Amino acid sequence: MDTDQEIMQTEIIIIGNELISGRKRDLNAWYASGCLLSHGLEVSEITTVGDNYDTLSSVLRAAVGRSHFIIVTGGLGPTEDDLTTEIVSKALGRPLFLDETVLDHIKENAEKSGLNWSPSLEKLARLPRGATILDPKGEMCGFSLSEGDSLLYFLPGVPEQMRELMRGFVVPDILRRYRPANIPWHRTLKVYGLSESHIAETFKDLSDELKGVMFGFYPCFPENHITITVRGKNEVEVERESTRAEENIRKLLGPYIFASDDKTMEVIVGESLMERKMTLSVAESCTGGLIGHRLTSISGSSLYFERGVIVYSNRSKVEMLGVKQQTIDSYGAVSDEAVREMAEGIRKIAKTDMGLAVTGIAGPLGGTEDKPVGTVFIGFSVDGNVFSGQYRFSGERDKIKLNTSEMALDWVRRYLNGHSFIPGV
Amino acid sequence: MDTDQEIMQTEIIIIGNELISGRKRDLNAWYASGCLLSHGLEVSEITTVGDNYDTLSSVLRAAVGRSHFIIVTGGLGPTEDDLTTEIVSKALGRPLFLDETVLDHIKENAEKSGLNWSPSLEKLARLPRGATILDPKGEMCGFSLSEGDSLLYFLPGVPEQMRELMRGFVVPDILRRYRPANIPWHRTLKVYGLSESHIAETFKDLSDELKGVMFGFYPCFPENHITITVRGKNEVEVERESTRAEENIRKLLGPYIFASDDKTMEVIVGESLMERKMTLSVAESCTGGLIGHRLTSISGSSLYFERGVIVYSNRSKVEMLGVKQQTIDSYGAVSDEAVREMAEGIRKIAKTDMGLAVTGIAGPLGGTEDKPVGTVFIGFSVDGNVFSGQYRFSGERDKIKLNTSEMALDWVRRYLNGHSFIPGV
Repeated sequence: MDTDQEIMQTEIIIIGNELISGRKRDLNAWYASGCLLSHGLEVSEITTVGDNYDTLSSVLRAAVGRSHFIIVTGGLGPTEDDLTTEIVSKALGRPLFLDETVLDHIKENAEKSGLNWSPSLEKLARLPRGATILDPKGEMCGFSLSEGDSLLYFLPGVPEQMRELMRGFVVPDILRRYRPANIPWHRTLKVYGLSESHIAETFKDLSDELKGVMFGFYPCFPENHITITVRGKNEVEVERESTRAEENIRKLLGPYIFASDDKTMEVIVGESLMERKMTLSVAESCTGGLIGHRLTSISGSSLYFERGVIVYSNRSKVEMLGVKQQTIDSYGAVSDEAVREMAEGIRKIAKTDMGLAVTGIAGPLGGTEDKPVGTVFIGFSVDGNVFSGQYRFSGERDKIKLNTSEMALDWVRRYLNGHSFIPGV
Repeated sequence: MDTDQEIMQTEIIIIGNELISGRKRDLNAWYASGCLLSHGLEVSEITTVGDNYDTLSSVLRAAVGRSHFIIVTGGLGPTEDDLTTEIVSKALGRPLFLDETVLDHIKENAEKSGLNWSPSLEKLARLPRGATILDPKGEMCGFSLSEGDSLLYFLPGVPEQMRELMRGFVVPDILRRYRPANIPWHRTLKVYGLSESHIAETFKDLSDELKGVMFGFYPCFPENHITITVRGKNEVEVERESTRAEENIRKLLGPYIFASDDKTMEVIVGESLMERKMTLSVAESCTGGLIGHRLTSISGSSLYFERGVIVYSNRSKVEMLGVKQQTIDSYGAVSDEAVREMAEGIRKIAKTDMGLAVTGIAGPLGGTEDKPVGTVFIGFSVDGNVFSGQYRFSGERDKIKLNTSEMALDWVRRYLNGHSFIPGV
C-alpha cells in the first residue's frame, strides 16, 4: 500500500453485544464516518460485532489485510465484558504490558473525581505491545497500533469520549500521514415547515440545472435537512458551484430555511434576541418545560431568557398568569382566547419584551371531536400586539411536544427576522 | 453446515452510501437484530457498505462462506443508484431474468396508486436466477436465494417495507427451517448514582458465582444499565437462573436500581406519585425546564404534576417563589439557603404535597472558585420537612443539566420508596 495514491481505504469496526442484539442503536459509526468524510476520507465498510473472540479476531485480521486506516470503537472500559484489548492482544500476537504512565494518570483522575481506587481500573492501563497512547490526558486514553501497512485506532464506545478522541487525535494523526487530494464541500441547510415531498418537488428542476452538485434529503423530525455536496477539480470551481447551489436553494425555500450546518433553532433564536437586545419569557402548558429547556441549553441564555412558567393545571394558569377563570370556563384552557391571555400574562409579570405561550393536547388522552389530540394554540405578545394561531400536529405525544416547541420558537425567529409566521389550520 | 446443530450463524448486510458517509443513521440493522434475537437467533456480525460493486461482492462472498442466514437490506429500488440485484447477479454468477408475475404485480400496484408506468419500474421485476419472491403481494416483494449452505434474504432499505417483510416472511421462513432450542431470557436493570467501575467491582464475585448468566454493562449517561442474559436448556432452568441472578444483583445494588427494561426515571416517579396519590410542583433554575419536560413526557402526568416555574433570573425567584432578596444577597442564588426557600415557595404557591427545586451553575461560564461550574443545590419540601443537598457534577452544560434533573427526580423516587437520598459533596 502506498500513501501517495489517490484514495486510502478506511474502515470502521464497532464492538458491542448491545449493538448486534437490537438493544442499542449505534451512534459511533455514524459519527466517525461523517467526521472522516468531512476531511475527505471515505469509509468503505463498517463492521459491527459482539465482544466475541472468534468473530472479532477474524474481522480484525481481514481489515488489516485490506485497509490503511481502521477505526475500532468499544470494549475498552473497566468491566469484565470489555474484551477488546485482550482480543487484540491475542489476535495480533502482542502480549499485554502495564503502561505505568497511563496507570498514574488513571489513578490521578480517580482521585480528582473523588472515586475510590479500584483494581478493575488497572485494566485500563494494560495495552498490547507496540501501542501508542492517543490522549495521555483524557478520561479514556485510547491507543493506536501499526500492523503491516495498516494503522488501527482503538477508541472507547462511550460516544462523548469517542468523539473527543476522534476529533482531537485520530483525525489529526491521519491527516499528518495522508492529505486527501480534494475535500468535498459540504453544507446542511435546515428547513422547518415544509414536507419532504414538497421539498422533493421543488428540487426536481434544480437537480438537472446543477449537474455537478449532489443533494441529500434527510427528515430529522420536525425538521428536514438538505445536504449539498460539491466535489470539484479545484477550489475556484468548488467555490463557484457551491455558492450557486446554495443561492438557488435559498431563493426557492426562503425563510423556511432557518439555519445551516450545526446551528439549531434555539441557537438562531438566541442570536436574534441578543442582536436586538430583546428579552423573552415563556408560558408552557402542553410542552411542559421543553421550550425553556431548549432555550436554556444555550450558554449565555440568561441574557435574554428571563423566566418561564409550566402552567399544567388550570388553576396555575389563572393564579400565575392572570388568565380569567371565565375564559377557561367559556372557551377551555386549550383555546385561542386562553393562549392570548397566557402570552400577555407572562410578558407582563416577567417585564420582558416578548411573551410566548403554548397550550394544547399532547395526547394520547384528552382529545375531543372538536379539539382532537395534536390541537395546539400558540400565542405571542410583543411590541403592543398579541398574535395567535392554531395548529394540528400529528404523531405521538413526544412528537407533538417537539413540534409545538419548534413552531413556537420559529415564531420568535420569524418575527425578529421580519418574516410572516407559518400559518396554522 | 448442519441445521441440527445448536447455533445457526446469522448475519446482516446493510447497503447504502448514506450510511457509510454519516449522512444517515441506520435503523434496519438495529431492528432486524432485535427481531431475530427475540426469536432466539443471535446475529454474529453486521456489515454496512456503500452501493459499490467491489466491496459488496466481496462482503457477500465472505458471508456465504460462514453464515447460514444472511439478511441483506437496501439498494432494491427503481432509481439508478439501486444496484444490489445487479451486483448479486454478477457476484454469485446468476444472470438476471424478468419475472412476469412480479412485473404484472408492479404494474397493477402502479395503476392502483395512480402512478404512471415508467420503464424504471421494470427493474424491480428483474431477479437473479434461482430467486424466490418473499411477498408476492407486497409494495416491494423482496426475494431469497439459496447459495451453498446459506440462505440470503434481500429486503428493501425503506424501514417500514423492510420491517413488514422481516416480520411477515423472513422470520417465519427461517423458523420453518430452524427452530432455536431455547430463547434467551433478557432483562435490563437501570442504575443511577454508582460509577461504572464501582459496578464492575461489585460484580467481580457475582460473575463467578452465576456461571450460566451473561452480564452486560452499558453507561447511558447519567445512568448505568446492566443487562442479564440467561440461556438454559429448559424453561424451568432459565426461570431459576434468571430469578437467582436478578435477586443477587438487587441485593448488591439495592435502591441504586431504579427501574428495569423500558421504564425510565420519570415513569417510575410518576407511578410512585400515583400510587401514593401525591402531587408535585417544581422550581427550576439551572435545568431550565428539563425536569418539567421529563415529568410531562408521561401521559397522565397532569394527575400528579401541578405546575413548574423556570426561575432563571434572581428577580423571578423573589417574585414568584418568595425567596428573600436578603438570602440571595447574603448567600447567592446558588446556595443551600436559596434552594430551600425555592422548594418551600413552590410547594406553598402550588398547594402540592411536594415542592422540588434545583439551582446551580451549568456553565461553561459563571463558575467561581468557591462554586465552580457543576455546583448544584437540590431542595425538597414535603410532609413538613425541607431537605437539601449540594452536588458537584462534571461535564458539559447539557450533562450537568441532565444529571441535575436525574438527581432531583431520584430524590422524589427515593423519598416515596423509603430510601435515603444519594449524598452530595
